[in-house]
Amino acid sequence: MKPYRVIGFDADDTLWHNENIFDQVHARYRELLARYHDAATVDRTLFATEMRNLERYGYGVKGFMLSAIETAIDLTDGRISADEIRTLIRLGHDMLDHPVELLEGVADTVGALARTHRLLLITKGDLRDQERKLAKSGIAGHFAHVEILSEKDETAYATVLRRHGINAEEFLMVGNSLKSDILPVLALGGAGAHVPYHLLWGAERVEQTPDAPGRFYQLKNIRELPALLGA
Amino acid sequence: MKPYRVIGFDADDTLWHNENIFDQVHARYRELLARYHDAATVDRTLFATEMRNLERYGYGVKGFMLSAIETAIDLTDGRISADEIRTLIRLGHDMLDHPVELLEGVADTVGALARTHRLLLITKGDLRDQERKLAKSGIAGHFAHVEILSEKDETAYATVLRRHGINAEEFLMVGNSLKSDILPVLALGGAGAHVPYHLLWGAERVEQTPDAPGRFYQLKNIRELPALLGA
Repeated sequence: MKPYRVIGFDADDTLWHNENIFDQVHARYRELLARYHDAATVDRTLFATEMRNLERYGYGVKGFMLSAIETAIDLTDGRISADEIRTLIRLGHDMLDHPVELLEGVADTVGALARTHRLLLITKGDLRDQERKLAKSGIAGHFAHVEILSEKDETAYATVLRRHGINAEEFLMVGNSLKSDILPVLALGGAGAHVPYHLLWGAERVEQTPDAPGRFYQLKNIRELPALLGA
Repeated sequence: MKPYRVIGFDADDTLWHNENIFDQVHARYRELLARYHDAATVDRTLFATEMRNLERYGYGVKGFMLSAIETAIDLTDGRISADEIRTLIRLGHDMLDHPVELLEGVADTVGALARTHRLLLITKGDLRDQERKLAKSGIAGHFAHVEILSEKDETAYATVLRRHGINAEEFLMVGNSLKSDILPVLALGGAGAHVPYHLLWGAERVEQTPDAPGRFYQLKNIRELPALLGA
């Protein structure tokens, strides 16, 4: 295989747990609205609100909080109480204050690869929240550059590679989302290693299967990376 | 004077109107809560909530919206209705969807300086919202680099200058906030041109007067910049 000189890492659900926190909050949210609607309706309506607001809010916890409040008012025809909305704000604060829990194998693998490769962290979401998580993660020092983007598409990756003088052929991106981490990088001629997380947010789901022989790697665990890279 | 090779521009209230939009929303907010509290109490409590949440939310409209909802619930002891909270969410959407209105003289001045200097845009706030405003501004093409930061302090400016290989001595920062645009740059040995806006958010107010002879310039209008730079 080609020697990949630069390795990009997604953050949420690739380096540290994230979607499990949203999953717990969704469960609380369904309970809060259970006397008005069944769980499926709550989930479907919240997701629709999030998608409608995505261009306006971007990714991240604050936009989720605002969409959750808006959905709760809509689904209850305005009958939800201010105290229940306060509960939603508290849930959001808990998410933002949540400790950062690295995924199994991350600390060892990232630490080892930092000695042989140039590592980039490439994530999307709230600027302040992603910086906070990286600072808390204990692994910030391993990354030569950190890029917090409002979207992770082909244009955004092309800009990042150009900014750091990286050729796509020498770049491998590692992440849990085919849509945001793998497909745009493959389209640019780079390589992708997909390490799924056990939960995936609806907005990250794609039908497309990567078709890039020799440039796409399906991994079960981040611990398989050093062997893949011949390190 | 020294030849400044690189000019940094703040965005909100330096290139385009921003605080006037918040000002209008504050007026609507006071009206909404007028039957519970006087205007001064509403303003003071909202500001206190914003400051308490600043570390968690960072700067920007989404954090403001969440703090405004939280404050409204607190100030009404939970008596505010869900419909009134929906009104707050709509006000926030109006802010995010607001057209970008350049300040007088900006288009000419930035366009002219782009031909003689390397221009940077250095702003803080919501990633998506700042990108949206820049895209709508019609002047994005004049900036060699755009930096959207979660905080504009000495450390942040030092990182930006290092990233782009700029010596502080050849850098002039232009902005409406002494706290965020001028003082940290002067502390690093750079220069600052202060162009006040007629409104200033409480969190940007400082008592300190810049003490950097020959490196601090007080302007009334951005149109004075080319003459200052000897262009």
